[in-house]
Amino acid sequence: MTRPDTDITLVGRLAEAAGDAIRPFFRARYEIETKADASPVTQADRAAEAAIRAILDKALPTDAIIGEEYGEKTGTSGRTWVIDPIDGTRAFIAGRPIFGTLIALLQDGWPVMGVIDQPITRERWIGYAGRPTEFNGSPVSTRNCPALDKAILATTGPQYFPGCSGEHFSWLARQCGDTIFGGDCYNYGGVASGHIDIVVEAGLKLHDFAALIPVVEGAGGRMCNWSGDPLDADSKGDVIAAGDPARIDDIIEALATADHAH
Amino acid sequence: MTRPDTDITLVGRLAEAAGDAIRPFFRARYEIETKADASPVTQADRAAEAAIRAILDKALPTDAIIGEEYGEKTGTSGRTWVIDPIDGTRAFIAGRPIFGTLIALLQDGWPVMGVIDQPITRERWIGYAGRPTEFNGSPVSTRNCPALDKAILATTGPQYFPGCSGEHFSWLARQCGDTIFGGDCYNYGGVASGHIDIVVEAGLKLHDFAALIPVVEGAGGRMCNWSGDPLDADSKGDVIAAGDPARIDDIIEALATADHAH
Repeated sequence: MTRPDTDITLVGRLAEAAGDAIRPFFRARYEIETKADASPVTQADRAAEAAIRAILDKALPTDAIIGEEYGEKTGTSGRTWVIDPIDGTRAFIAGRPIFGTLIALLQDGWPVMGVIDQPITRERWIGYAGRPTEFNGSPVSTRNCPALDKAILATTGPQYFPGCSGEHFSWLARQCGDTIFGGDCYNYGGVASGHIDIVVEAGLKLHDFAALIPVVEGAGGRMCNWSGDPLDADSKGDVIAAGDPARIDDIIEALATADHAH
Repeated sequence: MTRPDTDITLVGRLAEAAGDAIRPFFRARYEIETKADASPVTQADRAAEAAIRAILDKALPTDAIIGEEYGEKTGTSGRTWVIDPIDGTRAFIAGRPIFGTLIALLQDGWPVMGVIDQPITRERWIGYAGRPTEFNGSPVSTRNCPALDKAILATTGPQYFPGCSGEHFSWLARQCGDTIFGGDCYNYGGVASGHIDIVVEAGLKLHDFAALIPVVEGAGGRMCNWSGDPLDADSKGDVIAAGDPARIDDIIEALATADHAH
């Protein structure tokens, strides 16, 4: 059962706690470890997730939790919190204030609430199924995009496309007006607020994308995988976010073509 | 003749005026035009450069000015101000607070002062020949980098490497610990503050790189072109910035190799 006002108030507390844990580490000295998948993790990631889990354990002991750093805790309520304490750890390490804390609430496996929180610039997008997405407390909406050649496309980096998926991304990028790199979850906030038209990524995990769906869709956009199907927990995480749902078919069609020009 | 204290006070006024001109346009509606070189320009770029030039015209009428948007004004003092009102216009348009205003002062053709100003997060790096670089009024320094495989390498985007220079960048990226994309001039601030080790770009213009040199070098780093030569006004703008000058030879050697793996 969802309880929007209660959930939104609680998730604000979770984001605050994560931000309080992260801010002392930003541009400070800390240990950087390399995880099994070669991605970096810092004390800030762990401190932020621990802060969120401590609140959830106390406030909602029967809810399940899936966190990037501390794994899975089963529950009995049918609700699952999905946490990526720092999405964009590389950007965080490089001192860029465009990483984010991602918190999603899944009801029976589907994300009904999502938060993108940037704790340095203090920017927060909250999406909740059936409600307009809010940015720092005010409603935001995606923008219309009449054609791909008018679109700003964003993705974090060319190296994150496994196999030959980079060639497919490259073909889409050729059809778009402009492509900007970097940004991680911050790009999806940009879609929700109507500054970016499309984000395409590949190989994201549940904790990377679950929170983004309510944010983007509550602002009028649409998210799906590269085949146009919904992104669920079993998805392999090839993600499309479009501010204007009318462009989804064009994006899928372009991604079905590969760029072998170089 | 340089007058450090006077120049630094004045450049602070210039950056403030540019920021005041830019902030109202950030994430607002405005016209975007496409220039002859296919790069975008907005009212914000023009308003910021006009604000800087108005102050310079009055305060230092015999100094020359070279601006990205309003061209060249000759002078008789031997001093030239070089202005890029918004470096990272695409990031600005996408609503990312990591673009910057660049202002350089050249004495007899060589940059003696440089400023990188981020007007949204209100971050400002000022470099002045013979003085330590300051970030928001406090000295900063680059960090040591014992080997390329420990380095964070940054560049704005893979599409900005003309000809086959992207293959050379790609080879360097393989030798480095991590590569992050996006960032424009903000990456060089990251080098000066010791969060990023290397920035490599190609085809930059004088207004893109002049201000970066005093900032990076005053913090202990080094800037040069891909051959190791100084970046002067006639340079074709293939830029290396290294926080640790001991890595310059490794970077040049890696850039001399091309990655034909794909």
